[in-house]
Amino acid sequence: MISFRCDYEEGACPEVLEALVETNRVSTPGYGDDAYTGAAVEAIRRKAACPGAEVYFVMGGTPANAMVIAHALRPYEAAISADSGHINGHETGAVEATGHKVLTRPNVNGKLTPEAVREVAAEYIDEHVVKPALVYISQPTELGTLYTLAELKALRAVCDEYGLLLYCDGARLASALTAQDNDAELPDLAQLCDAFYIGGTKCGALFGEAVVFSNAALGENFAYTRKQRGNLLAKGRLLGVQFGALMREGVYEKYGAHQNAMADKLRAGFAAKGLPMLAQTTTNQLFPVLENAQIERLSQRFAFHTWGKVDDSHTAIRLVTSWATQERDVDALLASL
Amino acid sequence: MISFRCDYEEGACPEVLEALVETNRVSTPGYGDDAYTGAAVEAIRRKAACPGAEVYFVMGGTPANAMVIAHALRPYEAAISADSGHINGHETGAVEATGHKVLTRPNVNGKLTPEAVREVAAEYIDEHVVKPALVYISQPTELGTLYTLAELKALRAVCDEYGLLLYCDGARLASALTAQDNDAELPDLAQLCDAFYIGGTKCGALFGEAVVFSNAALGENFAYTRKQRGNLLAKGRLLGVQFGALMREGVYEKYGAHQNAMADKLRAGFAAKGLPMLAQTTTNQLFPVLENAQIERLSQRFAFHTWGKVDDSHTAIRLVTSWATQERDVDALLASL
Amino acid sequence: MISFRCDYEEGACPEVLEALVETNRVSTPGYGDDAYTGAAVEAIRRKAACPGAEVYFVMGGTPANAMVIAHALRPYEAAISADSGHINGHETGAVEATGHKVLTRPNVNGKLTPEAVREVAAEYIDEHVVKPALVYISQPTELGTLYTLAELKALRAVCDEYGLLLYCDGARLASALTAQDNDAELPDLAQLCDAFYIGGTKCGALFGEAVVFSNAALGENFAYTRKQRGNLLAKGRLLGVQFGALMREGVYEKYGAHQNAMADKLRAGFAAKGLPMLAQTTTNQLFPVLENAQIERLSQRFAFHTWGKVDDSHTAIRLVTSWATQERDVDALLASL
Amino acid sequence: MISFRCDYEEGACPEVLEALVETNRVSTPGYGDDAYTGAAVEAIRRKAACPGAEVYFVMGGTPANAMVIAHALRPYEAAISADSGHINGHETGAVEATGHKVLTRPNVNGKLTPEAVREVAAEYIDEHVVKPALVYISQPTELGTLYTLAELKALRAVCDEYGLLLYCDGARLASALTAQDNDAELPDLAQLCDAFYIGGTKCGALFGEAVVFSNAALGENFAYTRKQRGNLLAKGRLLGVQFGALMREGVYEKYGAHQNAMADKLRAGFAAKGLPMLAQTTTNQLFPVLENAQIERLSQRFAFHTWGKVDDSHTAIRLVTSWATQERDVDALLASL
Repeated sequence: MISFRCDYEEGACPEVLEALVETNRVSTPGYGDDAYTGAAVEAIRRKAACPGAEVYFVMGGTPANAMVIAHALRPYEAAISADSGHINGHETGAVEATGHKVLTRPNVNGKLTPEAVREVAAEYIDEHVVKPALVYISQPTELGTLYTLAELKALRAVCDEYGLLLYCDGARLASALTAQDNDAELPDLAQLCDAFYIGGTKCGALFGEAVVFSNAALGENFAYTRKQRGNLLAKGRLLGVQFGALMREGVYEKYGAHQNAMADKLRAGFAAKGLPMLAQTTTNQLFPVLENAQIERLSQRFAFHTWGKVDDSHTAIRLVTSWATQERDVDALLASL
Repeated sequence: MISFRCDYEEGACPEVLEALVETNRVSTPGYGDDAYTGAAVEAIRRKAACPGAEVYFVMGGTPANAMVIAHALRPYEAAISADSGHINGHETGAVEATGHKVLTRPNVNGKLTPEAVREVAAEYIDEHVVKPALVYISQPTELGTLYTLAELKALRAVCDEYGLLLYCDGARLASALTAQDNDAELPDLAQLCDAFYIGGTKCGALFGEAVVFSNAALGENFAYTRKQRGNLLAKGRLLGVQFGALMREGVYEKYGAHQNAMADKLRAGFAAKGLPMLAQTTTNQLFPVLENAQIERLSQRFAFHTWGKVDDSHTAIRLVTSWATQERDVDALLASL
Repeated sequence: MISFRCDYEEGACPEVLEALVETNRVSTPGYGDDAYTGAAVEAIRRKAACPGAEVYFVMGGTPANAMVIAHALRPYEAAISADSGHINGHETGAVEATGHKVLTRPNVNGKLTPEAVREVAAEYIDEHVVKPALVYISQPTELGTLYTLAELKALRAVCDEYGLLLYCDGARLASALTAQDNDAELPDLAQLCDAFYIGGTKCGALFGEAVVFSNAALGENFAYTRKQRGNLLAKGRLLGVQFGALMREGVYEKYGAHQNAMADKLRAGFAAKGLPMLAQTTTNQLFPVLENAQIERLSQRFAFHTWGKVDDSHTAIRLVTSWATQERDVDALLASL
Repeated sequence: MISFRCDYEEGACPEVLEALVETNRVSTPGYGDDAYTGAAVEAIRRKAACPGAEVYFVMGGTPANAMVIAHALRPYEAAISADSGHINGHETGAVEATGHKVLTRPNVNGKLTPEAVREVAAEYIDEHVVKPALVYISQPTELGTLYTLAELKALRAVCDEYGLLLYCDGARLASALTAQDNDAELPDLAQLCDAFYIGGTKCGALFGEAVVFSNAALGENFAYTRKQRGNLLAKGRLLGVQFGALMREGVYEKYGAHQNAMADKLRAGFAAKGLPMLAQTTTNQLFPVLENAQIERLSQRFAFHTWGKVDDSHTAIRLVTSWATQERDVDALLASL
């Protein structure tokens, strides 16, 4: 069975694994108070062109989102998200479990629009309702689409207009940053967002995400939040070691580009056969629409998620490529169509 | 600098590291829905002689405690702990952050006594105060001491008397189970407690703890709690692989015994020099009382925590041994006394 | 200025005020441990034909909803509500502040349909999302419409099918129970719902609602929840005295009927002038659609809420009648049209 | 049965009841957006000599405390309290239910000392433990004792030293302000505390407390917190009307003084008979130590709480006087000794 189910079905990319093995016997202070972690923080600050950023490593995407939001908001404040946002639909109410409502608006091609944010901000204006305080987006989106730089600037503008924070979930940021049509670089994200995270799990780390508060004041005391919410690793240097390896010249980009190249080849193959896509993506997720019989046939040899019924005889599936996807597996899938 | 600061200053023990490396490229479903995890769960059930137990792997001790307590309690219920309990003093209010009060009583040699539990249960009896519902202990305790089997049975009896759950934090359970004077085996813990966790982080895992609900009904739907509280690892098999390696015949016990042997040698060395201990322990933590000048001198070559002032010229320090502690380092410390 | 803004703009109805004045100097135990409260509980059990019900008086509707939901749910569970439900749009995230997500579906004429409940229950089925556990409705709805007995039975059936609790917010239950077309009596509610509340604030009490757990097991220990959530009144007998007066033969019904009669007269007057309604209601709220100029003119003499723009020249307003609405004020409004 | 159990066993004092009756039929906007409430806010600002204070009326003491603390603290922050503090021992974990730990130190004569605060602040200094952020006291204390002005200034100084907020629970503030030896006036409290509340329930109101943020910035958006936590009264003017009556020239002071006068007479009577007190108080609570047989005898005619065993044959009881306590009942009790 060849899997295109998701980008976390294997272990670590070679650079990360080697770094873990090499440093395994070294003795360092716990909780990330070690030199590997310090160096990884510095590498991220440099890459994001944000020398004053507060950077914290955490264990996963769901806790990253819940912790940033819980840390940023007063109890009566709320986050705004597209209905398709990960915090709304895939995190078991982790944000609400910290006491905060998630206000949603319909996504447009996976994205939250400035108009939607404005609409929420204009509607929620007195103490009988929650107070919107933070805009949640992800880059790429749940649908694998990308915000353009212009779209991010427009979101920032509406946030400034209404005094909202802007936070970006970067679980698959490697794929976004290396997509062919991407024009929003890491320093842009750092400049436009108050906080974001650089995903490790979905680009070659065993686990771990780097939460970056480019708005450093917002990150103050986040060490307390991370500990209280159960995300301070005793052997904290594991995160420093892994991100050190990923942030070394070109590594993160290499695997992001590989994911995209494999996805591009799939896209080209589907297009050559005239098979439509549910959404036009340039990142490592694609959503081809296939005949049900064909899906049935494919699923005997390939693992993937079905995404949603399109009509009585057609269904969209989701294919995801990873740092470990091999070209021969892509070829095999295309040959099976 | 030779460190006796704690038992999480190195990476993984050889068996765990090898297992991670060997399985690194294998593709498995995410979130622990893989065969490694399934096998590790079975191994734990066998070792605990509790075939019906619900077993969940989580990322660390603080989230294990907070999640079990949040999962077990209704909103108005509280946990009972010794004042020295880890949930009371070292977890940044993680339990309170889930809405629950921790009711404390003074520890006796690091332990919570049945009398203290009875006292709390008898005092908190109406709706103007929280309702005690769960007793939290750890084996070994924060002071490195051990509950005897008789003491655990006495705690279970008072829990039964007042309708309380009994939960044991096993962060250093490997050391407890292999201590020379221990008489409470894993199946005893499983039988006497409603839930406990087997610590991986402090015995050779990179990270991870195995939460065991021997009271299986209590564990129902814990998968939701784990996900909501940010402790469901995307590459969940990492925990299965690690615990699979640790639970293999004799591995966990080997490292527990090694920790204790190194600590025993230290204890014998201190005793031979007539140096007193703050508490009598048989596990991998010891608390010698030294002259301040001697501490000053030792700290130039050895890393350790100071624990507390004893008198104007004496202070207790804490020494901790780990799976990675080398005998030559123990000898070096004793030679420096 | 004559007000039709809402049904809580005056103090207490005569029976309630007299009871408060008469009992003012009597000395009773605090916290509702008094005979007035006991008698009021009994009166409610009788009226609801539910002798085993657990009845708790609380201070208002928002805390009643948040407390019942927090009390009924495990941390990872969620409530299902129409998008127009009061808990979703008018309670400042009070439910989310207790840690629970509110799952919404579009309302149909103000109501949540069994199909919508089924849809949610079928969609939320694993630990990556919250677990639906309780259906929230209100009788009458936010739009002033009524669930028929058949509709309530259909909701109960879908709740039974999926193991969900059914909870009904009865802020304006007096108006519902006395509406001309109502066919769901108090005993029906008690039989079909696990819990509901009988609104006092909006029918002649100074404040206070009676939470009724007809599913008595669900109400166990609610006294703790009420105290913890700040709704246990020191002079608790005030709630018993008020509900004692309201539950006396015919009082609650008299004021419900009065509210409806005043609203019916308004409805008839608007209909006679050919003015349309946004929603067809038979309770004490009505939503006439008027020309903007007419609204402007009316608002010089009458106070009311505008509800929503209908087209460029028309807007819906909301008129509410109360126990204190006087017929001459209704006549004055109709005369002004 | 003559009751000295507590100061909330009767209804409202005459001025409050009359104000409620007089205004009962007046129609005002809901939620405290009315002129009575506005006038009561102004009266409190004047009396506290704090024209910029933010004043919010809430329903009771437990929610006042929990809301102020939840409003003031970030999630990882904690309150410091004497072990005898009401938030620690009598509020069903209401503070913890908002996610915050309460750090306690032994009381000295019912009070929290500056040394105790300094000790906590010096101990809790990194992210492995909660961050102390607010000092909770009450005036008078749970033991009926009073902080002197000098003691309050010393607490303020230690708060300033460590960046802590100072909050005072004034459930029985009327009795404190009118005690013979009190030297801390309302303007002193306003100046020294960031926030405090003026208790209505225990001095002649049916219910209600006035939360005063003399640190006005701290009070920003408290309207959201009050609504979210279920303490925004629909008929909000009821609180304005009651506090309007209590704040009228001399009313609050009259009842405070009456409570104290009755308590003083009791104190004098007990002293004349040579009966000791558990604590020396000058407010409306007193704690005589009696022989058990005498308590048994007294309890046949008088209602009161037993406070705690003193020795095998003696027990302390608690007597509380209220606005409604009659001198003849005091005389009756003394005659029965």
